[in-house]
Amino acid sequence: MVPRVVFGRGSFASIDTILMPKRRNSEAPFIYLVDAFFEGTDLHTKIPLLFDDQIIYISAEEEPKTEQVDALVAKLKADYTELPSGIIGIGGGTLLDMAKAVALLMTNPGSSADYQGWDLIQRPGLYHVGIPTISGTGAEVSRTAVLMGPEKKLGLNSDYTTYDQVILDPNFLATVPKEQWFYTGMDCFIHCVESLEGTYLNAFSESYGEKAYDLCKEVFLGDIPKLEAEEKLMMASWHGGMSIAYSQVGVAHAMSYGLSYVLSTKHGIGNCLVFQFLEEFYPEGVALFNKMMQKHNISLPKGICANCTDAELELMAKIALGMAPLWENALGPNWESKISKEDLIAIYKKI
Amino acid sequence: MVPRVVFGRGSFASIDTILMPKRRNSEAPFIYLVDAFFEGTDLHTKIPLLFDDQIIYISAEEEPKTEQVDALVAKLKADYTELPSGIIGIGGGTLLDMAKAVALLMTNPGSSADYQGWDLIQRPGLYHVGIPTISGTGAEVSRTAVLMGPEKKLGLNSDYTTYDQVILDPNFLATVPKEQWFYTGMDCFIHCVESLEGTYLNAFSESYGEKAYDLCKEVFLGDIPKLEAEEKLMMASWHGGMSIAYSQVGVAHAMSYGLSYVLSTKHGIGNCLVFQFLEEFYPEGVALFNKMMQKHNISLPKGICANCTDAELELMAKIALGMAPLWENALGPNWESKISKEDLIAIYKKI
Repeated sequence: MVPRVVFGRGSFASIDTILMPKRRNSEAPFIYLVDAFFEGTDLHTKIPLLFDDQIIYISAEEEPKTEQVDALVAKLKADYTELPSGIIGIGGGTLLDMAKAVALLMTNPGSSADYQGWDLIQRPGLYHVGIPTISGTGAEVSRTAVLMGPEKKLGLNSDYTTYDQVILDPNFLATVPKEQWFYTGMDCFIHCVESLEGTYLNAFSESYGEKAYDLCKEVFLGDIPKLEAEEKLMMASWHGGMSIAYSQVGVAHAMSYGLSYVLSTKHGIGNCLVFQFLEEFYPEGVALFNKMMQKHNISLPKGICANCTDAELELMAKIALGMAPLWENALGPNWESKISKEDLIAIYKKI
Repeated sequence: MVPRVVFGRGSFASIDTILMPKRRNSEAPFIYLVDAFFEGTDLHTKIPLLFDDQIIYISAEEEPKTEQVDALVAKLKADYTELPSGIIGIGGGTLLDMAKAVALLMTNPGSSADYQGWDLIQRPGLYHVGIPTISGTGAEVSRTAVLMGPEKKLGLNSDYTTYDQVILDPNFLATVPKEQWFYTGMDCFIHCVESLEGTYLNAFSESYGEKAYDLCKEVFLGDIPKLEAEEKLMMASWHGGMSIAYSQVGVAHAMSYGLSYVLSTKHGIGNCLVFQFLEEFYPEGVALFNKMMQKHNISLPKGICANCTDAELELMAKIALGMAPLWENALGPNWESKISKEDLIAIYKKI
């Protein structure tokens, strides 16, 4: 779990006092990885740069990649004689996962692709701070950093991955574009459905998952003031992330991973594209999802897989079925007898 | 926040593998502070003692005291040439707070009474692990260790106080005596009421407080199987503790502190004794509390303050009114104009 968290409107301003005691010396900078969305805004004026501190803007248009992480690590090692004092990620799931991965790879040798899996990271990373500016992924609280690698889309899952400090400032949510707000929020809602309907569920995950689920319903189906909705979505993401940290996601995430891998579909919208056709697995969840789509006038793109070759569809299904723990959580220990490559291809063809 | 937590029936058995990497060497023992309730049971056979590890049984009949903490620290310093590898607290709030305080005082000089307050602890304590065997206080997750000192009942509140590791094993709850189960559970319920009705509330605390409140209602007013109720109460305590960590308690805790200080009333029952007469502050909470009492055939002792002298009643009220943040949370910034010593004495006299 994240050992330190501050919450509140305007709490981003406390970054100065939070980082101060963590600066090792003037040669050991803080590196800010910031969503390129903020380039040209005044955010940089609020970042307390000192000495050789650096802001690096990174596009979140594509899913974070192992080669991107490796290139950033190589750059930072070339730029400085000392290891940085810390890495600060500011953005949505892409930036938050990227910053976690960079912090880990600064102290663990080799390529980030070597660590895609569970508990392969052997050494603590650099001190790292997460500041979400979009809510839903749960990346701010999770023990994974999901990366697209040369062979798979899979996270660096370890106790060292989790942020050392998180700053939850709902003011950041004011500028999120509507579609992005919805798709990322649905990532949280879908997490919760998968966790609560899963066979891995326990009372710990359940209590977090139920709270996040209830908050999502308030945010996306209730009529609450905008500021309150921002704060509640931020907390939904937090609790949803905690829920899956102690259980697992399911069918939607497995299939969304396949889709992302082949078509580079972004995670949030990918989950939505898949989830709409998962009534047989999650009837109540899909019904609520449809209501939420309707209430917010969201229309998902169609024909995404229309031009896919058979080989591409096969690869999607193979990648999805490779996520064994997700299927076991969704369908139980005999999941392999309950789902086939053909079943998945039939669903992908609808997307 | 607690950086590491495991949850599950039987998870206590994982203590062996959790502690292994934390043992510095054979001269640096693990010290288990265990509720004397377990003396004579087979719990000691499940504790993986090695080298000079030691189990110390401690009575939870009275609230933990600064002098007790100081004596334990002196004993451990005399018993060993090296600092212990870690302190493990096994019990309810008393034992959990005691173990936190001992871990801190092994590395911070002076008496524990010197640190009663906020952020007075300057150095990290020894590695410390909390294992709750009764649920409700939230001590397993909080950043305080409440101690009765020579001058006040007040916690050692600091970022270093929080446990490094918690093991949540609902199996421990099977043997809790019914009254103790109820009073300690009500500590959680009362936390939540005070947090949710308080002026310090924010969306972070609210989401935790609401979940804990809902879980308390399920446990104490619902009809759910015993095992499920144990697990849900364990999670209620966890979320309730998180809720007050980021907000504050209120009238019941302030007044209960006064009662404890003068009459050594235990915290759980003390809260209940006070809360029953706080309708004017928490009408809905007190109504639910009365339903819970009725459902579980709990009758609180009467006439507790009947033989108190005027000086004792004055002292209770003075101690209670000394907890300024609790009153500000309950009644707002102008709390001093809304409550008087006489008001409190009138309530104490009913108890």
